[in-house]
Amino acid sequence: MTAKPMTLLVIVTEAVLEDILIDEITELGAHGYTIGDGRGRGTHGTRAGRWTQGGNIRIEVVGSTQLCARIVARLKEAYENNYGLLMYTAPIELQN
Amino acid sequence: MTAKPMTLLVIVTEAVLEDILIDEITELGAHGYTIGDGRGRGTHGTRAGRWTQGGNIRIEVVGSTQLCARIVARLKEAYENNYGLLMYTAPIELQN
Amino acid sequence: MTAKPMTLLVIVTEAVLEDILIDEITELGAHGYTIGDGRGRGTHGTRAGRWTQGGNIRIEVVGSTQLCARIVARLKEAYENNYGLLMYTAPIELQN
Repeated sequence: MTAKPMTLLVIVTEAVLEDILIDEITELGAHGYTIGDGRGRGTHGTRAGRWTQGGNIRIEVVGSTQLCARIVARLKEAYENNYGLLMYTAPIELQN
Repeated sequence: MTAKPMTLLVIVTEAVLEDILIDEITELGAHGYTIGDGRGRGTHGTRAGRWTQGGNIRIEVVGSTQLCARIVARLKEAYENNYGLLMYTAPIELQN
Repeated sequence: MTAKPMTLLVIVTEAVLEDILIDEITELGAHGYTIGDGRGRGTHGTRAGRWTQGGNIRIEVVGSTQLCARIVARLKEAYENNYGLLMYTAPIELQN
């Protein structure tokens, strides 16, 4: 394997944000993303403790540490106060 | 980024367990979870080798190592003997 | 927890490949896999930059480093030239 160390960023948020987040992520430099549907409950964002619904999405971005940091900073600034939003990163090895 | 080291717990199991596992996880102290639908095959649990079906779910919990250990211990004790069940953990950085 | 260090392999590709990839993965020795539906955009594979569609799948395999390397090598060889394909690995702790 000719693996390349990269960062995985996972964003769990409300489905209503899907289109706008795709624009944000792409403008910040992401070359790709994968979105899946989910349901759940969370306590991040201003709706803490009340973020109980279906209609969530889970977005995965694989990129540089810098790209993931830019996305995290932008989404926190713009959406955390008004939407359920959970973000985490992990080191991965890109395999192709 | 003001990242906080946490543990990601992923649980892959049968969809019929969704409601009861939400109760278990919440009672054990999880503040949030994300559930997605899946399909697949697995060899964990007593149904080893015969766990071939759609109707799986994939649950993600982000929490402390201790919380994840409690959930793992409880689910193994209560469900592993009768249901397909795969659980894994990984260190992640919570970003908000 | 009696955790066992293993490798997680995530494969994001086109939904049309689902049946054939299940056969490939199983023949290479995977004991299980989980598949979820997704949508997104990517730049891997020959369709780079034009891999913009719904109809993606996200496959997770938990196995040995060697198994994951075999799957990666085989899928790169057979599918990367003609399909959108993104693969990454990460170390995880199998919990049961």
